[in-house]
Amino acid sequence: MVASHSKCRVCKGPAVIDLPRHNAKFCAHHFLELCRRQVVKAIDGFGMLRRDDRILVAVSGGKDSLAAWDLLVELGYQADGLYVGLGIGDYSDVSGQYATAFAAERGLTLHTVDLRQEYGYDIPTAARATRRVPCSACGASKRHLFDRAALDGGYTVLVTGHNLDDEAAVLFGNTLRWDVPYLARQLPVLAARHGFPKKVKPLCRLTERETAAWCVVRGIDYLVEECPMAAGNRHLAYKAALNAIEEQSPGTKASFYLNFIERMAPLLAGERAEGDDLHPCQRCGAPTTGEICAFCRVVEKSAAHEPVSVEVLLGRKGRVA
Amino acid sequence: MVASHSKCRVCKGPAVIDLPRHNAKFCAHHFLELCRRQVVKAIDGFGMLRRDDRILVAVSGGKDSLAAWDLLVELGYQADGLYVGLGIGDYSDVSGQYATAFAAERGLTLHTVDLRQEYGYDIPTAARATRRVPCSACGASKRHLFDRAALDGGYTVLVTGHNLDDEAAVLFGNTLRWDVPYLARQLPVLAARHGFPKKVKPLCRLTERETAAWCVVRGIDYLVEECPMAAGNRHLAYKAALNAIEEQSPGTKASFYLNFIERMAPLLAGERAEGDDLHPCQRCGAPTTGEICAFCRVVEKSAAHEPVSVEVLLGRKGRVA
Repeated sequence: MVASHSKCRVCKGPAVIDLPRHNAKFCAHHFLELCRRQVVKAIDGFGMLRRDDRILVAVSGGKDSLAAWDLLVELGYQADGLYVGLGIGDYSDVSGQYATAFAAERGLTLHTVDLRQEYGYDIPTAARATRRVPCSACGASKRHLFDRAALDGGYTVLVTGHNLDDEAAVLFGNTLRWDVPYLARQLPVLAARHGFPKKVKPLCRLTERETAAWCVVRGIDYLVEECPMAAGNRHLAYKAALNAIEEQSPGTKASFYLNFIERMAPLLAGERAEGDDLHPCQRCGAPTTGEICAFCRVVEKSAAHEPVSVEVLLGRKGRVA
Repeated sequence: MVASHSKCRVCKGPAVIDLPRHNAKFCAHHFLELCRRQVVKAIDGFGMLRRDDRILVAVSGGKDSLAAWDLLVELGYQADGLYVGLGIGDYSDVSGQYATAFAAERGLTLHTVDLRQEYGYDIPTAARATRRVPCSACGASKRHLFDRAALDGGYTVLVTGHNLDDEAAVLFGNTLRWDVPYLARQLPVLAARHGFPKKVKPLCRLTERETAAWCVVRGIDYLVEECPMAAGNRHLAYKAALNAIEEQSPGTKASFYLNFIERMAPLLAGERAEGDDLHPCQRCGAPTTGEICAFCRVVEKSAAHEPVSVEVLLGRKGRVA
């Protein structure tokens, strides 16, 4: 990752990674130390986890969720995983294998839910049936199933692997629209409320380059490919725009996200929806503002629809048709 | 600007410009109408101008300030101009000629101030003497001189040609840092206070492509080149990032700026510095938070410095050396 004559800032040994935002290079050992320190800083600084928490990690088989799980276990937390089979062709098959292998090699508990087997649909079919971008049905499905599993399994907190790039890109999107209610809720910790579990993002101080390097250095095999259905979505455009600025001014992305949390989020506390308008979904009991929750509406439309493969949905161009 | 078979949305005549954010093309006549409507909407919607205002326009010789002056005069306002000679080599010489010609052809009053003649320095010298980016000394000089001229000349309001791209880029920069006091003051109208004139930005609803097209259609000659000292500055990087997103989602830039004004600025009203800590500069009497105002500090350092030409400052690479 860096020229071989580069030296670690800490020990002057051979560096394996250059982190312009820290204006320094690091050897493998001290890079891992830096990652641990950032995660501990996030966990403690934002009050994410207690030592006696029973943690459920939302696991995709990608670098972020496996790094999050690995870091938490290494830091001594008790954390199980949940993998949701989304039915996105080879992408899902391979991601499931990475998740399963990670857990098996470490003797960790991995729960699995398969959308097609248990709910009668998959994400490509849901995208066609709901006539919306695939990320919409996918997000609604995962949010519902992770929340439900955390509550049903007696877990006290749900961990997701969102990294600094993810959070900065979502913040950028919400900022471009000045969507005040969404901005007000974009915090690395959401307290449990009205039928939702507590949710935390311990990787929010690490970039995706850093979580990838964590996995490489730690010997964790993960699915490198992006989801084929995400190609061309706005989230990736926001990431690209921020990366262009980051390249010119290293550290911009981190200060954008962290200054928001520190300086702006407190000013928006009064704008936060308190969930007073939530009540149980008439079908599944999950909290919703309507009569039927978003998940049950996806299930209703998608399970009745003839299955659509990811190849058919994406068409020849590899973009959503 | 568009294929010759394109038709104006309004009259179906031949279109001269395609405006993706309005999802429409326009002929010359109806494009000018659209610009006038946007400017009137800004003036009326934000309470910028009254019919009996005595207006001073800050004129650079570029498309924005000449379009602003032209639009105001055309809309029946009484508006004089002020041109400040910044001493940035050929760039300043040519920009001054465009400003002078515009005023002369229309029988308008243009005041001029020359930094070197009247204050003993120019911007390249100030950049070297203050050891900061040139835009810093330039901004401080222009703000001071335009404010001073407006107050001394009995003008009731100072107009600047900032367009939607300018405002969106400044907003983006302030947002990336979450600089709350700056965000709180980023409004298209700043009321007169503590020795500052009222300042308004009537082009804040027009993009720079639109102000350029206004000048082309109206036959206004303007200096097309960007300031050579601005190359590589952050403001241009922010514009590029927003343009990349605008291309993918037309209208994003306008909604970013206008939604900020509508939704977020009211929430920040309490964060606005009220200027209670301002008092007169000991040298010139202009309002400042220190003992000596930013302008007088620039003058002090720069007038004592040996003159530096823009060519010497920029060096061979055409970037600030």
